[in-house]
Amino acid sequence: MASNQIQIFDTTLRDGEQVPGCKLNTAEKVELALALEDLGVDIIEAGFPISSPGDFASVEAISKVIKNATVCGLTRAVQKDIEVAAQALKHAVRPRIHTGIGSSDIHIKHKFNTTREDIIERARKATILARNLVPDVEFFAEDAGRADLPFLAKLIETVIAAGATVVNIPDTTGYCLPHQYGEKIAYLVNNVPNIDKAIISCHCHNDLGLATANSIAGAIAGARQIECTINGIGERAGNTSLEEVVMIIKKHNDLGLFTNIKTEKLNPLSQLVSDTMRMPVQPNKAVVGANAFAHSSGIHQDGFLKEATTYEIMTPEEVGADGSKIVLTARSGRSALAHRFLKLGFEFNRNDIDTLYSEFLKVADKKKEVLDEDLKEMATQFASA
Amino acid sequence: MASNQIQIFDTTLRDGEQVPGCKLNTAEKVELALALEDLGVDIIEAGFPISSPGDFASVEAISKVIKNATVCGLTRAVQKDIEVAAQALKHAVRPRIHTGIGSSDIHIKHKFNTTREDIIERARKATILARNLVPDVEFFAEDAGRADLPFLAKLIETVIAAGATVVNIPDTTGYCLPHQYGEKIAYLVNNVPNIDKAIISCHCHNDLGLATANSIAGAIAGARQIECTINGIGERAGNTSLEEVVMIIKKHNDLGLFTNIKTEKLNPLSQLVSDTMRMPVQPNKAVVGANAFAHSSGIHQDGFLKEATTYEIMTPEEVGADGSKIVLTARSGRSALAHRFLKLGFEFNRNDIDTLYSEFLKVADKKKEVLDEDLKEMATQFASA
Repeated sequence: MASNQIQIFDTTLRDGEQVPGCKLNTAEKVELALALEDLGVDIIEAGFPISSPGDFASVEAISKVIKNATVCGLTRAVQKDIEVAAQALKHAVRPRIHTGIGSSDIHIKHKFNTTREDIIERARKATILARNLVPDVEFFAEDAGRADLPFLAKLIETVIAAGATVVNIPDTTGYCLPHQYGEKIAYLVNNVPNIDKAIISCHCHNDLGLATANSIAGAIAGARQIECTINGIGERAGNTSLEEVVMIIKKHNDLGLFTNIKTEKLNPLSQLVSDTMRMPVQPNKAVVGANAFAHSSGIHQDGFLKEATTYEIMTPEEVGADGSKIVLTARSGRSALAHRFLKLGFEFNRNDIDTLYSEFLKVADKKKEVLDEDLKEMATQFASA
Repeated sequence: MASNQIQIFDTTLRDGEQVPGCKLNTAEKVELALALEDLGVDIIEAGFPISSPGDFASVEAISKVIKNATVCGLTRAVQKDIEVAAQALKHAVRPRIHTGIGSSDIHIKHKFNTTREDIIERARKATILARNLVPDVEFFAEDAGRADLPFLAKLIETVIAAGATVVNIPDTTGYCLPHQYGEKIAYLVNNVPNIDKAIISCHCHNDLGLATANSIAGAIAGARQIECTINGIGERAGNTSLEEVVMIIKKHNDLGLFTNIKTEKLNPLSQLVSDTMRMPVQPNKAVVGANAFAHSSGIHQDGFLKEATTYEIMTPEEVGADGSKIVLTARSGRSALAHRFLKLGFEFNRNDIDTLYSEFLKVADKKKEVLDEDLKEMATQFASA
């Protein structure tokens, strides 16, 4: 792997699928896994094998069909979990076990009722066991977002020494601000002596709307894997949106990073996930929302029609969406109106447009959107007047 | 205004309402304006008066009913726009005119076909005219996100000298990364000699999913107004989400900032805006999504039931949402199952729960969510077996 590649770890089928209402059967999961591989994701987290027989079956089925991407199964830092995951992954060309444990004092005390020392020992043992079963082991330090930094560094150093190939630093509760998350990653880069033997991974949650920004801050600080889901679905307010981090990395050459994602497949896959999981995508969702390329204000339409880059930093084509839309509403201006008339085959001079524009505004103040049929009627009446 | 207060400038009725399908009539706009005032927003951008007769009427009607918040009307840097806006605002207790012009070379060249010098002159004249009509004038430097910094500083210095009370630095295309937007604001703080005579405002768009992070980076760098909308609605991928920036400022005491927003009114207002504008909010939307407080994985449920703060950084009550939900799915664990049985009046010992849990997983692998009725049937059958 080139040092400036960001590996895309998709967890739509694990962290995404555990959302209320999103449950999929094995056939649906296999279909999505193949689509994710086709999109170019590097790692597919296929499920949490010990959690239910259905999940085990899905991880097993996905392991059989995926040829290029790594297939990953989640476990707690518990022997039985890890053994069952290895079994579910046994047909995978590139299997990965993702094991881990809570790392913040609030988790250590309230969830595990134990000590920091015991957590380190459990983490070490789980990693060694997993590495005995598969060659690729990712360790997650749950709630790292709120963990004590020197303790977190010690924990990460321990699991890398025990054989972890990837270390995941989750902001489990979605609390960190971008500069804070970036500083946390930078701290690990600078304070974990064996950090060069593993890839650092960002796993951010969106409770405060910052998952994407935090993941990018992590990558700037040295992380080389981002965990994300299609449409940002996931527990509570969801995970980092795959489509957002990928397009930031693509459009910001100043970052000097790249991914293997075929961005023109983003929009179709977003729709497939939304349909299969019955999770609507809001129209104003970044990159994949229905309105992401819709221009409606007059000021914007005028600029956009003169030169698209005045208001667009990416094209609909590069994310596989339909073309940019000029939607005619009461906020549209004369230039958008004249442009649409021309498209419909009506050429008017400036004075005509002024007259028609007043007529247009009356209709637009009553309707949400003025449609081509409305305009054709307007134009025909005007021509015959 | 205390220097650590962030003024919340809501543009749901202007930048939000210009979205395809979101058109509101005057009565609806007045209802939302009153609800926004009740929420505690400092400034309500009520519309773009010259754009249509309906918009003029709405700004006028809102100006008559709002008593505490500032009411703001948008204009281009054009004499007629500004005069019409002042007329629409004439009944407002605290009127503000929001005028401005493109500031990036791409806008100056392609949209205005003019020079930087001419832009500065138009900006100066528009500001002076507006200040002759109302005491509070905000200037927006459109596409400041891509503008040349020394030129932007000169433009901002000019409009402050001409009487602007607020200077708005929009990232119109949603391109900036948080550290870049923060550096832009810091540059203006350090390089505009009269910057202390105005408030700096952040107006960010969400094309890359970074609007919230950029606005917070701006505030950290010295901005003291954030422009935002309920549910993040707006042109293309929308604007900064009001609920996200407000909750970040509230939960991050480390920022040393505050707003006047009554956060327990956020969720009801989110629903009102969604219903009135017919713009769905996706379930995984931060703060106000239907799933924002829903815990479904076993690992999370176990921790949450032991101590809510293991997985929740804010309570549903503080944003006016219904209580946290434990949703029973195939990813739920024994502790969530036992907890729900207890709530339903069934007390089982550990062995019983083990048996019931296998039964539960069979149902859960088939259904999206296991409901209380399913559990009651399971418990009754178990007890009679």
